[in-house]
Amino acid sequence: VSAAVRIGLDVGGTKIAGIALDADGVALGNMRIPTGWGGTAVIDGILHAVSALQAQLPAGRSVISIGVGIPGLVDAEHGRVLHAVNLGVEELDVATRVHETTGIPSQVENDVKAAALGAAALRGDTRPMAYLNLGTGVTAGIVIDGRIWRGARGTAGEVGHLVVDPLGRVCGCGQRGCIETLCGGGALARAWGRGGDLPVKDILDAADAGDATASALRLDLQRGAAAAVRALVLAADVETVVIGGGLSALADRIGPGIRATLQEEAAASPFLRSLRLDERIEMLPADSPVAATGAALLGSASAGTDVRDKEIVTHG
Amino acid sequence: VSAAVRIGLDVGGTKIAGIALDADGVALGNMRIPTGWGGTAVIDGILHAVSALQAQLPAGRSVISIGVGIPGLVDAEHGRVLHAVNLGVEELDVATRVHETTGIPSQVENDVKAAALGAAALRGDTRPMAYLNLGTGVTAGIVIDGRIWRGARGTAGEVGHLVVDPLGRVCGCGQRGCIETLCGGGALARAWGRGGDLPVKDILDAADAGDATASALRLDLQRGAAAAVRALVLAADVETVVIGGGLSALADRIGPGIRATLQEEAAASPFLRSLRLDERIEMLPADSPVAATGAALLGSASAGTDVRDKEIVTHG
Repeated sequence: VSAAVRIGLDVGGTKIAGIALDADGVALGNMRIPTGWGGTAVIDGILHAVSALQAQLPAGRSVISIGVGIPGLVDAEHGRVLHAVNLGVEELDVATRVHETTGIPSQVENDVKAAALGAAALRGDTRPMAYLNLGTGVTAGIVIDGRIWRGARGTAGEVGHLVVDPLGRVCGCGQRGCIETLCGGGALARAWGRGGDLPVKDILDAADAGDATASALRLDLQRGAAAAVRALVLAADVETVVIGGGLSALADRIGPGIRATLQEEAAASPFLRSLRLDERIEMLPADSPVAATGAALLGSASAGTDVRDKEIVTHG
Repeated sequence: VSAAVRIGLDVGGTKIAGIALDADGVALGNMRIPTGWGGTAVIDGILHAVSALQAQLPAGRSVISIGVGIPGLVDAEHGRVLHAVNLGVEELDVATRVHETTGIPSQVENDVKAAALGAAALRGDTRPMAYLNLGTGVTAGIVIDGRIWRGARGTAGEVGHLVVDPLGRVCGCGQRGCIETLCGGGALARAWGRGGDLPVKDILDAADAGDATASALRLDLQRGAAAAVRALVLAADVETVVIGGGLSALADRIGPGIRATLQEEAAASPFLRSLRLDERIEMLPADSPVAATGAALLGSASAGTDVRDKEIVTHG
């Protein structure tokens, strides 16, 4: 048994979730702490999480890599994140600073791309896969042959800003009727307009109670997610679309509706029916540690091939 | 200099276009003949084209492979085409039959995928690329690292059936407002409804003359093509979208409008502006032999890497 341990951190707007994986993909430790605001606080939080995870390791194990998944525009090659607005970070040399302090090789990746990698590893399926992140915004990561598909300019999977209704709501991106205006948590909250800490949950509750506005928004959510699935399958031809993100905390309540929408659309179209999209989506269980797991795999050989033959087991 | 010659054939609904390439990608011969109806006539036409191309070769050259690009659902592995409705073919073992008769290794590929491969080779750019085929229908092929990207089920690039307007025209696929209903030659001809051999040319002529219906359809064409470009770039993140197909005979007349539409849409969206889509499209010149060229490269090592360092020169 190898003594090598990989640490993966998912740095989110509210919390940092960390995991320590052994060479077989078994979690030896995990933890979460609140995220601080601004570059210094983010680095401090990352270093604190690394120390806490190291303290959980059995004797004789040593950490050989640290991977960080973080929202924003990531320059993976230079270990840098730009425009991580939710963290109060304009530019941060994440990997360099973590490496300097810990002496451990470090890498950084966009959180959704890291989650895509983690979801692919956890599923153990080598076929092309997309991870659709339904959060405040809507974006996706694509994994081919166990590796993050970067495309030509790093925008692969940005289906949230494809227009599906020219008469739809205006999006922050400047367009009207993007997929994100239908199924992004931020857009739904704005359209709902009644505040609250969990507006999408409120919308679903109100829809269940028969509220017409909420029912229409719930339908938007389902149609938007279905459109994102179609775009990912038809343009990039992924076998499976795994749906995760903040809204996946409501997976049990939104999954059946998304699947039903795909089935209704297929009923009207032999072409769509032949694609069997309803069978090709999977709702990620709430709190599945995909982003931290993917971050732990960054730069490892297992991000390529090894992990595909193993089952990753997470405890916690 | 190698004596090896590769023959590529583009079997279309009206004509078979053939090309013979030497190892440097230089065309040693080319020809075109009308396509017959039904499986036997298609095979006879292919064999006739091969003989005609062989007769054009300089002494000492020998054909080492035959590639056939053909519309329809192609099972490349088994050398078979299904549902080539424009050719009157329900199922045809193209590669087996050509190989049996000629004794030359033969392969078959969907014509748009072959054209994508040929366009990538002719451009000599290794970055991910899409070939958007605007013909009777609308579909695309994606080339990554000089190889056709097949995806999980072979539907990669099928952006023609992404819905962009829920109130749009009904498509043959059963959906409403697909990209193909906006910019497919068949859909435009039906919406125009005045017959004629070249309905899209008639629409452009009438639009130039101020006809309101024609002007609206021209705008549809531009918007549909722009939406296809967006879907290919945002979902699959190709660097370039090369636009070809039957409508590219009108490239000089539709190219500027597609580019202008992309620019107008970018003017309203900083997000789209950052993608510079208008700079990332290329209109293929009319009669550019991309499908025959790509067919000639099928199965050759040059379909992978070799050709990227060479310029393919076509004569005629």
